[in-house]
Amino acid sequence: MQDKIGKVTVAVRGYHLDGYGHVNHARYLEFMEEGRWDYFDRHPALMSRLATGDIAFVAVNLNVDYREAAVTGDRLEVATRLSVLGGRSAKMHHEILRQRDGATVVRAELTFVLLDVASNKAMTIDGELRDALAALVVVD
Amino acid sequence: MQDKIGKVTVAVRGYHLDGYGHVNHARYLEFMEEGRWDYFDRHPALMSRLATGDIAFVAVNLNVDYREAAVTGDRLEVATRLSVLGGRSAKMHHEILRQRDGATVVRAELTFVLLDVASNKAMTIDGELRDALAALVVVD
Amino acid sequence: MQDKIGKVTVAVRGYHLDGYGHVNHARYLEFMEEGRWDYFDRHPALMSRLATGDIAFVAVNLNVDYREAAVTGDRLEVATRLSVLGGRSAKMHHEILRQRDGATVVRAELTFVLLDVASNKAMTIDGELRDALAALVVVD
Amino acid sequence: MQDKIGKVTVAVRGYHLDGYGHVNHARYLEFMEEGRWDYFDRHPALMSRLATGDIAFVAVNLNVDYREAAVTGDRLEVATRLSVLGGRSAKMHHEILRQRDGATVVRAELTFVLLDVASNKAMTIDGELRDALAALVVVD
Repeated sequence: MQDKIGKVTVAVRGYHLDGYGHVNHARYLEFMEEGRWDYFDRHPALMSRLATGDIAFVAVNLNVDYREAAVTGDRLEVATRLSVLGGRSAKMHHEILRQRDGATVVRAELTFVLLDVASNKAMTIDGELRDALAALVVVD
Repeated sequence: MQDKIGKVTVAVRGYHLDGYGHVNHARYLEFMEEGRWDYFDRHPALMSRLATGDIAFVAVNLNVDYREAAVTGDRLEVATRLSVLGGRSAKMHHEILRQRDGATVVRAELTFVLLDVASNKAMTIDGELRDALAALVVVD
Repeated sequence: MQDKIGKVTVAVRGYHLDGYGHVNHARYLEFMEEGRWDYFDRHPALMSRLATGDIAFVAVNLNVDYREAAVTGDRLEVATRLSVLGGRSAKMHHEILRQRDGATVVRAELTFVLLDVASNKAMTIDGELRDALAALVVVD
Repeated sequence: MQDKIGKVTVAVRGYHLDGYGHVNHARYLEFMEEGRWDYFDRHPALMSRLATGDIAFVAVNLNVDYREAAVTGDRLEVATRLSVLGGRSAKMHHEILRQRDGATVVRAELTFVLLDVASNKAMTIDGELRDALAALVVVD
């Protein structure tokens, strides 16, 4: 189970902040993107399937709850998992925790499709790729 | 009506892109943030009320639909309006259009609260501030 | 002469800041990059020569003086010009002024080469391209 | 000696790239800033002296050589050291190596002052602070 949930740690630095001294809300998307890349790095078989150049990973919706602010010196833990597998789309779930107190800073869900680059259409997720993804899904 | 909808134009540059040559999804949040700042710049009476230091504009949820990709050389028009005014929260709506064909690239809604900095709690939006905001709401 | 010096204006926003409430030093590079892109947009004949795909504009050195801090609400004017034309490299000069008082915030020089993509080597800048660039140089 | 040279590793991701598919030159400044923060994290006694709020670490010049391009999937090692200690300014040196082949991608030197916040002037670096910094200098 544990290997189905990716974890990366990010230290909050001055250049991540906004005018209130809090992490700017756009920066969290970079932290989550780092979480996703790291997740795929850890599943190289899946990654190699997606990185042929024929398929593009395309975000279609992102829904982010900002629950707490993070400040310089905070260390944030970005947990990333595949949460939903649909017929032509899937979802990844991110939870960003503040290490000093365990508070949830951000919770987000990203809906994506796998674009068939040749036809520029979302692929039906089936066959071996579906099996590979299905094995990784962790629901709440 | 027109002055209730802010408009800024952004030219897509190389440093906005991701590995597919498309605008990275985190960059759109900066484009939308630029849209909000410009919107508040154009409503200085409202801005001065919010910029006293006693109140912080805090995002609590962001829901973004990514509908089309934008590439280098595209000019994007970011339309920003206040779309919902609730008791203790409100929403701003962004629509990002691609000028060359008028396609909607991104549509997003940001839910925010006005934080009373002293108590660290979301303010009830009432009195003169409510009147000022209510006059700006543009529903779909 | 004036058309040989590009000018773009940037409003400083919260997401540009660092932990001291000043524009983060990496953000100035984006402001200057915006200045360069805008400069090339205004010289389309030159741009079309560079945008064939055979030539890449490659930065080899950047030397930046940070002279003053800029804060939220400042409007910055980024002046961009071609300052030196060498045999196989050239320089662009940027000066970023703060509009409220005319102070120079940043002064920078970027040395670049034009890379011949096929050979992956810096081109000798000669012929028509040299003439086109030479006509744009503005020394101090 | 080794503890006088900070090392952080950065994986190049899609959102770091520019229109050529190479790491954008502004992103390297963030990588180097990460290197500096990490360096100071590892020298907490020094950090606590600098983080009293009375002193600000202010960049006054940055000189960057861009030597090689880095692409998605590259892992970069950012080496950071104090390289020069002057009377009222000092320099930090960064070298960014590409792990796959050991090539130097970027080499940079950042000149900084320690600003006395009360007087808004660069401090003379002397006394205990000078001793602490002097012990960390690593020349070429």
